[in-house]
Amino acid sequence: MSPLSINQVNEMEYEDFISTFGNVVEHCSLFAAAIWSQRPFHGVKQLHKTFCDFIDTLPKLGKEGILRSHPDLAGRIAERGLLTTESTKEQLAAELNTLTPEEKANLTRLNEAYKTKFGFPFVICARDNKKAAILSGLEARLENETEKEVIQGVEEVKKIAFYRLLDILQHEEAEKLIGGW
Amino acid sequence: MSPLSINQVNEMEYEDFISTFGNVVEHCSLFAAAIWSQRPFHGVKQLHKTFCDFIDTLPKLGKEGILRSHPDLAGRIAERGLLTTESTKEQLAAELNTLTPEEKANLTRLNEAYKTKFGFPFVICARDNKKAAILSGLEARLENETEKEVIQGVEEVKKIAFYRLLDILQHEEAEKLIGGW
Repeated sequence: MSPLSINQVNEMEYEDFISTFGNVVEHCSLFAAAIWSQRPFHGVKQLHKTFCDFIDTLPKLGKEGILRSHPDLAGRIAERGLLTTESTKEQLAAELNTLTPEEKANLTRLNEAYKTKFGFPFVICARDNKKAAILSGLEARLENETEKEVIQGVEEVKKIAFYRLLDILQHEEAEKLIGGW
Repeated sequence: MSPLSINQVNEMEYEDFISTFGNVVEHCSLFAAAIWSQRPFHGVKQLHKTFCDFIDTLPKLGKEGILRSHPDLAGRIAERGLLTTESTKEQLAAELNTLTPEEKANLTRLNEAYKTKFGFPFVICARDNKKAAILSGLEARLENETEKEVIQGVEEVKKIAFYRLLDILQHEEAEKLIGGW
C-alpha cells in the first residue's frame, strides 16, 4: 500500500480507518476507534500525539493490558508464525531471527523471569534496537520496580506506534526523528 | 465448549484466558488483558463486575471507542456474514433476520441518523429486546443528548458482556438475573 496523505486519512470511512490504524497499538483496535472523533488530523506527529494522549488517560490496569497484548520477543507466537504483520517486520528488523541457540535460551529465560516478576511481557521498540541491545535492555529492566516498568513499557509502545504510523503515512524526512512529540 | 468452572478460569494460561474472554466486550480484547491481573475471580457476577469496573475507569473517548467497536444492528457487516460469533447469535435472538423490507429500511435510516448525530453506532442488548423493542428504543434514544447516550450505550455493553459470560461459565440459575451487579 502506498503511503497515505493526511487528507486521505481525514476523508476515510470509519471501517477503512480501523483497518488501517487498528494495529498501530498491537491488538488494541479500541484506540483507533477511540480517537476517530478527534479528526481532522494534521500529520504524522499530531496523529501520533493523539494516540499517546489517549494512552496516557488510561488507568494502570489498562496500561498493563496494552503490554499484555504484545507478544514475547522471539517467543512461541513468533515460532508458530502467528505474529501480526507489523510485529513480524519489527522482530526481523531487530535480527531476532539470527539468535544463536545460546542467545535464544538466554532471551527465553529472561522473558520468563520478566513476566513472572511483572505480570506482563517485556516490550521494547525492536526497530530501535538490535538483538544485543534487546538482551542487555531486558536484563537491566528486570531490576526495575513494577510502577517504573509499566511507564517504560508504555513509552516503548508509543515508539512502536510512531514507526507504524511512518509506514502508513506520507511524511517529511525530518518527521522521522523520534522523541519530538 | 462446555461451560467452565471459575476454578478452571483461574487456572488458565494467559493465552487461553484471552481466547476465551477476549470478545466479552466486542472487539476489545484489551479489557480481558487488563483484568487478567485481578485473578482469582469468584464467579460470574464478580468477573462481570471486574469488567464493568474497568470500563467505568475509561475516559469518554474510550467509552465512545467501545461503542464504535460494535457493528450496526442488521447492518452491512451482518449482511456480509462478517459478524463475530457472539454478535451473530445475539442478532438472531432479537429476530433481526425476520425484518420485513419496511422494517429493514426503517432500521437502516434510524441507524444512520443515530450515527450522524452521535458519532458512534446504536448499541442495545439484543438478547433483552426483540425487533420491535429495538426499533422503538432506537427512535427514542435518538432524542437523547450525546453525554447520556454514551452512558446508556455503555450500560448496554455491560448487559451484553453479562450474557456472554453466562455462555462461557457455569452458574446457578439465580445468577442469570440481570441487574444484580
